[in-house]
Amino acid sequence: MTAASLFAIPGSQDEVETGTSLAPRFDAHGLITAIATDVASGEVVMVAHMNEAALAKTIATREAWFWSRSRKELWRKGLTSGNTLEVVELRVDCDQDAVLLKVRIAGDQVACHQGYRSCFYRTVPLGAAPSAETKLAFDDTMPRVVPKA
Amino acid sequence: MTAASLFAIPGSQDEVETGTSLAPRFDAHGLITAIATDVASGEVVMVAHMNEAALAKTIATREAWFWSRSRKELWRKGLTSGNTLEVVELRVDCDQDAVLLKVRIAGDQVACHQGYRSCFYRTVPLGAAPSAETKLAFDDTMPRVVPKA
Repeated sequence: MTAASLFAIPGSQDEVETGTSLAPRFDAHGLITAIATDVASGEVVMVAHMNEAALAKTIATREAWFWSRSRKELWRKGLTSGNTLEVVELRVDCDQDAVLLKVRIAGDQVACHQGYRSCFYRTVPLGAAPSAETKLAFDDTMPRVVPKA
Repeated sequence: MTAASLFAIPGSQDEVETGTSLAPRFDAHGLITAIATDVASGEVVMVAHMNEAALAKTIATREAWFWSRSRKELWRKGLTSGNTLEVVELRVDCDQDAVLLKVRIAGDQVACHQGYRSCFYRTVPLGAAPSAETKLAFDDTMPRVVPKA
């Protein structure tokens, strides 16, 4: 089986956006954006990337697999930390270059390697032009475990 | 003012992930991923990209601006459709290559140019290996308006 047979080949924009074929539009690096939300709270917990193999494995196994751009390897989320992501629902966006995963987090119930429930643990002040002095604020209400060394 | 002065320059990984400086890590194309969620429901409504100028405008104006990769232009979301996005909260992720916007959608209360509340209006079947025959299912419960011609 060739890699190309894992998914339909994207057709016209109209076909991609209004059709029923799963025809992911991988970018020049062979990647699509993958957003994970906690199925219980709806909170966005992380964003990562999938290549063809990661998307296919995620669909087949209901466990979240990603492509690590830094390590350049296929990566089953949570393999070392225990915080695997069970995929309850998977959606594709209009132009099929992004997917949305609704997940149940196993283990410590945190998705970020910094130990926070979500990777989005800092807020940006709004209403004034940003500068090199702009200061982020930590969300002290977010559940966190001490990251493993 | 040079573009570089809009934000701090990213330092070490530890500084980027555990510090309080807003130091976005734009990719080789000068972009970061931007995810918008409806502030009321928490639903992910769209994903797009921001360049330095789009992020700076969003922060200063509390209105969502993106960079259109297809049109290669700065883009105030909703300028033609009326479905602008008021940014209530903005967060940055651990490695500062993605931002999360909690938004109030104006106009028709839909974020997708296909008229749906969210761009993620189709689900992918799980539990079996995908193929060119995999069929998406439309979410018939999602609010929709007829797209403008």
